[in-house]
Amino acid sequence: MLLLSGGTGTPKLLNGIRQYLPDEEITVIVNTAEDLWVSGNLVCPDIDTVIYLFAGMLDTDKWWGVNQDTFHTHKALKIAGHNEILQIGDHDRATHIIRSGFIRQGASLSEAISRTASMLGAKANILPMCDEPVSSMITVSEGTIHFQEFWVEKAGRPDVLGVEYRGAQTASVSEAIKKTISHESNIIIGPSNPITSIGPILAVKGMRELILSKHVVAISPIIGCEPVSGPASKLMSACGYEVSSRGVAQCYSDLLDVFIIDEQDREMKSNIKGMDAEVITADTMMTSSKKSAALARVVLQHLI
Amino acid sequence: MLLLSGGTGTPKLLNGIRQYLPDEEITVIVNTAEDLWVSGNLVCPDIDTVIYLFAGMLDTDKWWGVNQDTFHTHKALKIAGHNEILQIGDHDRATHIIRSGFIRQGASLSEAISRTASMLGAKANILPMCDEPVSSMITVSEGTIHFQEFWVEKAGRPDVLGVEYRGAQTASVSEAIKKTISHESNIIIGPSNPITSIGPILAVKGMRELILSKHVVAISPIIGCEPVSGPASKLMSACGYEVSSRGVAQCYSDLLDVFIIDEQDREMKSNIKGMDAEVITADTMMTSSKKSAALARVVLQHLI
Repeated sequence: MLLLSGGTGTPKLLNGIRQYLPDEEITVIVNTAEDLWVSGNLVCPDIDTVIYLFAGMLDTDKWWGVNQDTFHTHKALKIAGHNEILQIGDHDRATHIIRSGFIRQGASLSEAISRTASMLGAKANILPMCDEPVSSMITVSEGTIHFQEFWVEKAGRPDVLGVEYRGAQTASVSEAIKKTISHESNIIIGPSNPITSIGPILAVKGMRELILSKHVVAISPIIGCEPVSGPASKLMSACGYEVSSRGVAQCYSDLLDVFIIDEQDREMKSNIKGMDAEVITADTMMTSSKKSAALARVVLQHLI
Repeated sequence: MLLLSGGTGTPKLLNGIRQYLPDEEITVIVNTAEDLWVSGNLVCPDIDTVIYLFAGMLDTDKWWGVNQDTFHTHKALKIAGHNEILQIGDHDRATHIIRSGFIRQGASLSEAISRTASMLGAKANILPMCDEPVSSMITVSEGTIHFQEFWVEKAGRPDVLGVEYRGAQTASVSEAIKKTISHESNIIIGPSNPITSIGPILAVKGMRELILSKHVVAISPIIGCEPVSGPASKLMSACGYEVSSRGVAQCYSDLLDVFIIDEQDREMKSNIKGMDAEVITADTMMTSSKKSAALARVVLQHLI
């Protein structure tokens, strides 16, 4: 079972999928274009959410960070007048230190993540989208800034003029990902932001071509004209897509075989143009573990 | 007022001296040969003890680290199977992050330390012995290892065959230190380990010559044949010095004008050979703030 993941939507779906499948049978290719070296160590927000989910450590109130984490170092920095760009918990920081330690010793990002996940007890196969650094850069009126600067430091407030996946075209699909994809018939694109979560994965040179030949099932992260969470709305508009499941379908139009949209959008079902995919409606609001499992069941039913 | 410091002995004396002088009038040149990049950031143990003392943050039970610090990240690392070489507290880690942030931005070690000390509220002038990396390397039977590996990881257990200040001869005295020394008549060598605390400072190329012309008052860190704390004993023996105040006097023989030894060693007073210095006895066991002040008073009485 192979999923593309980023942000918090797909981890919620993964929480459902692991109620049907053992973790060892789940592979997740994760966005790393929001990664950033902070306070001496590499923070991989989307990777860590997936690691923490499978290690049973995830804060499932926020859907990021470690459950019941403390923030002593982050607060001490603030008191001294140093504003750490991400709100890093003390336990979370340990994860960054372990991963970055492997990188400092010469490991690739894939190796470093695999070893870190294993040390924390996550049994799923968690793969970064590539080993090279790629950054989602957001162009706002005052210039082009890293996604984290836009989303965390500026609270997503500035108008977005453009999005660029810096480094994606010189990055390459790792051997591990090639091998994994070659063994799969299905690829699930989780309900994550199509621009900053899934977009970077698909932008890695060669990735889209590998996925094209597979049976692709995608779940829309948008209900009506609002994303369930996160900054998809501004970013989709800036990239010329309608902020709706129709817009999401456009992002993936060449890839889709099955497209799952929310049942509240059922009138859109016959109205998604220029696409051969089967459109399915389901309850996509994963507000509980039970609802995640129900949506996962719909997804599993549409695999070949 | 200018002191050379390292370890915990001189900070205890500084605690006494600041009962007579405003912090702004105290300059401390501090050993940095025990510094180490740990978990992504530069740890400067001897510098931080001095910063924390002057910032009112020092744990004066251990005489290192931040008072009432927590160890959440360090413990999370341990649970995951990653053994962090130094026991770094969460608050202490913030200090390392701030300093290393300045270094990553291109600041010299002196600038980084000065800005960090200022952010934490320390008003004394705290200067690293040099801007270049210098390491106290300890030769043991299995090879040559960093001081921290010898003292923390191996708990100071291996026999010591030799000590080397790696980098000291290619390091240089900073302009800030040159200027400070030129304005001082007196230099106080605090009761710190002569081999791994004061030795590296004196080994920085050009430092000893600058100090030679000054009125030097040193306090022995040894009573009888035992150091008050720390690994001085093995290290002095390995370097060919007697483990006693006599041995300490030998280390500084060319520099000393006044040498303060413990009153328990008074019979040694007439027995320190080959030295022109005046030998004074005092109670050097600084087991309380009051006793630190009393020893500081003796020191201040012997300045010119």
